[in-house]
Amino acid sequence: MKLMQSWVESANSATTDFPLNNLPCGVFSINGEDPRCGMAIGDYILDLTALEAEGILQLGAAALFDVPFWNEVMEAGPAVWADLRAQVTAMLAAGASKRWIVEDHLVAMDSARLHLPLMVAEYTDFYSNRHHATNVSAILHGTKAALPPNWLHMPIAYNGRASSVVVSGSEVRRPWGQIKGAEFDAPIFAPSRRFDFELELAAVIGVASDRPVTVAEADAMIFGYVVLNDWSARDIQAWEYQPLGPFQAKATATTISPWIVMQAALEPFRTVTTAPEMALLPHLCAPGPMLYDIALQVAITPEGGAETVVSRTNYAEMSYASAQQLAHHTTGGCPMSVGDLLGSGTISGPAQDARGCLLELSWGGKEPVAIAGGARRFLEDGDTVTLRGAAQGDGFRIGFGACTGKLIAALADPYAR
Amino acid sequence: MKLMQSWVESANSATTDFPLNNLPCGVFSINGEDPRCGMAIGDYILDLTALEAEGILQLGAAALFDVPFWNEVMEAGPAVWADLRAQVTAMLAAGASKRWIVEDHLVAMDSARLHLPLMVAEYTDFYSNRHHATNVSAILHGTKAALPPNWLHMPIAYNGRASSVVVSGSEVRRPWGQIKGAEFDAPIFAPSRRFDFELELAAVIGVASDRPVTVAEADAMIFGYVVLNDWSARDIQAWEYQPLGPFQAKATATTISPWIVMQAALEPFRTVTTAPEMALLPHLCAPGPMLYDIALQVAITPEGGAETVVSRTNYAEMSYASAQQLAHHTTGGCPMSVGDLLGSGTISGPAQDARGCLLELSWGGKEPVAIAGGARRFLEDGDTVTLRGAAQGDGFRIGFGACTGKLIAALADPYAR
Repeated sequence: MKLMQSWVESANSATTDFPLNNLPCGVFSINGEDPRCGMAIGDYILDLTALEAEGILQLGAAALFDVPFWNEVMEAGPAVWADLRAQVTAMLAAGASKRWIVEDHLVAMDSARLHLPLMVAEYTDFYSNRHHATNVSAILHGTKAALPPNWLHMPIAYNGRASSVVVSGSEVRRPWGQIKGAEFDAPIFAPSRRFDFELELAAVIGVASDRPVTVAEADAMIFGYVVLNDWSARDIQAWEYQPLGPFQAKATATTISPWIVMQAALEPFRTVTTAPEMALLPHLCAPGPMLYDIALQVAITPEGGAETVVSRTNYAEMSYASAQQLAHHTTGGCPMSVGDLLGSGTISGPAQDARGCLLELSWGGKEPVAIAGGARRFLEDGDTVTLRGAAQGDGFRIGFGACTGKLIAALADPYAR
Repeated sequence: MKLMQSWVESANSATTDFPLNNLPCGVFSINGEDPRCGMAIGDYILDLTALEAEGILQLGAAALFDVPFWNEVMEAGPAVWADLRAQVTAMLAAGASKRWIVEDHLVAMDSARLHLPLMVAEYTDFYSNRHHATNVSAILHGTKAALPPNWLHMPIAYNGRASSVVVSGSEVRRPWGQIKGAEFDAPIFAPSRRFDFELELAAVIGVASDRPVTVAEADAMIFGYVVLNDWSARDIQAWEYQPLGPFQAKATATTISPWIVMQAALEPFRTVTTAPEMALLPHLCAPGPMLYDIALQVAITPEGGAETVVSRTNYAEMSYASAQQLAHHTTGGCPMSVGDLLGSGTISGPAQDARGCLLELSWGGKEPVAIAGGARRFLEDGDTVTLRGAAQGDGFRIGFGACTGKLIAALADPYAR
């Protein structure tokens, strides 16, 4: 697939995340005004709320962009998603006749504040990358390391907290929690000392369902994808997670990229799902390529320092794709809602510098990771973590925009009022 | 505390769940009309939506009952909750001057359909009853039985699925899922054969928070309580729950009572929280009595058969109260929302017939529980499970209304369309 030419010049660059081929979905505001829906194009945001209000963009009888989130568009269904892409592509394509009307509704991205692009209904986090699961097992259990027995048969998951999902750029405060060192009999209540990021991609569910769905049906329910940082307090997690799974360790914040890349924009980058090591039960088998070739990276920038990329991996390293995860999610009859967010789980590659979290990169804190001006076992106050993802086309890239978060110091006393 | 006399005669009975002292919050509809908010009083529902629309009930500038859920009332805050109770108590008290105006807005409960009383924001399920945790450990691990090491230090929990919460009276379909017998190498995909209920009480959060809260602050954030049945597929759970906790085993349905009993109605029944076996960390210590003396029971009624009460227990058997659970929930900075639902975890007592689920009652399926006309290891298709709860006052009771659900057969083929 080739770059689609736009009259927005900055969209024709080989290095922008937002060529005309992409058209990702976001919510923005300027000058403190009410947030509005828009699509990124080069260095600009196309103001869809204004275009719809003026009747230039028409997606049916009811207004879909009069709210500051994309859930109403998602609810309108896949035919509307396709219609939206077609109309906006026509408006922005090189030589578009409507250019003179549309031009007034381009907002410079660097003048805009970006908001959460959707109301997250519920948030689920999976554990579906073989390298990550194997590394974690080895780090926690040493020579007894082995994948959990169910791991090769289903995409393991836990329910997370939708209320903790924040947009890129939000500060993240180091949490307090119960922590128990191996050398002590009882836990203490203290700020986490092993605070970590997790590099993930997450599917945004755009079609509701109240019965089990096949992998093919699940794939058609996905509106798009975001890059996601599942911040994790490893010391809190180690003490709390048996027997019911992670809870407060994952509840501080989950940061997502400001742009939802629609599934349609990723279609040219579909790639085969890794062949499972054991035959999957039929209801989890992928009927075709369900992963995408999306290059991912993590960078750490200390307070006042320079950025260091500490990991480079690819979404194609996943053992289960989002569609398989969603199909599993519905097996017990669990109703799925528009706006549900399904995190892939940490995405690691086979190489040492392709691991998707510090727990793996520093091998449980034993091997510090070099960054400009220092090293990290786990995150330090003031560190900014930046995740980036992009599918590379022929002379263009489909990106998500940076997914950043700065870790700020824990409250001195969480109960001081 | 004595019975408060009402001019609604059926509210003065010693056996109604809904005396004037109670005034629980529900949502109802009649003749297929739009659902409205109401409070139960004896055999009637007081139509608050109509009373507010007519200006008889006034809780401030904005309408709170023009939506079919209680979230807006909760958002209005504790002062409004108290004002509401005061106004409705005055309307319904024996000798009330407004009786002639109010009388027209009583709806016979047996003519009404009851709906979910709130929009559940997120649902968390705890594991905070010592008898239950000890029994489960013994059933699963036999002679190696022991509480998890963290259990005595914190209320263990996992996040559940808000989308699965349904109101009493909803049918529950037996789920399919991955099941692995010890005698097989690989799992099968089949309907659950070990489907169970769990008797719980759940707190409805009425005040939002975005930072850690003390137990006293948490207590003040609770709007009220419901009785809750956390339906559980034990065979699915056994295979999936390691290492990230229960997922599809708990996602089929969670049934709540149709009435939220406000915390104010339960105040006279506060009772001491069981002294913890080990000293809790200060942020989890209860500053006063945080549990309630609420008698609870579970009954099973087979298709076309008679009801058998299979368990009788009490909410006072909990090791951690809802306020302690909520305080723990916020330790890591997890934002809490209006409408969050916090299940207590299964409530068992020390006696054999005080166990809150069939897993315990039948000791892992080994000892069938006698019911009228048969016996149960786990639930059978057609079984109706009814949970009841009530605090017993002097000549009156504060009840939740029955929390019922009928188990219907699994889909023959979940993917047939």
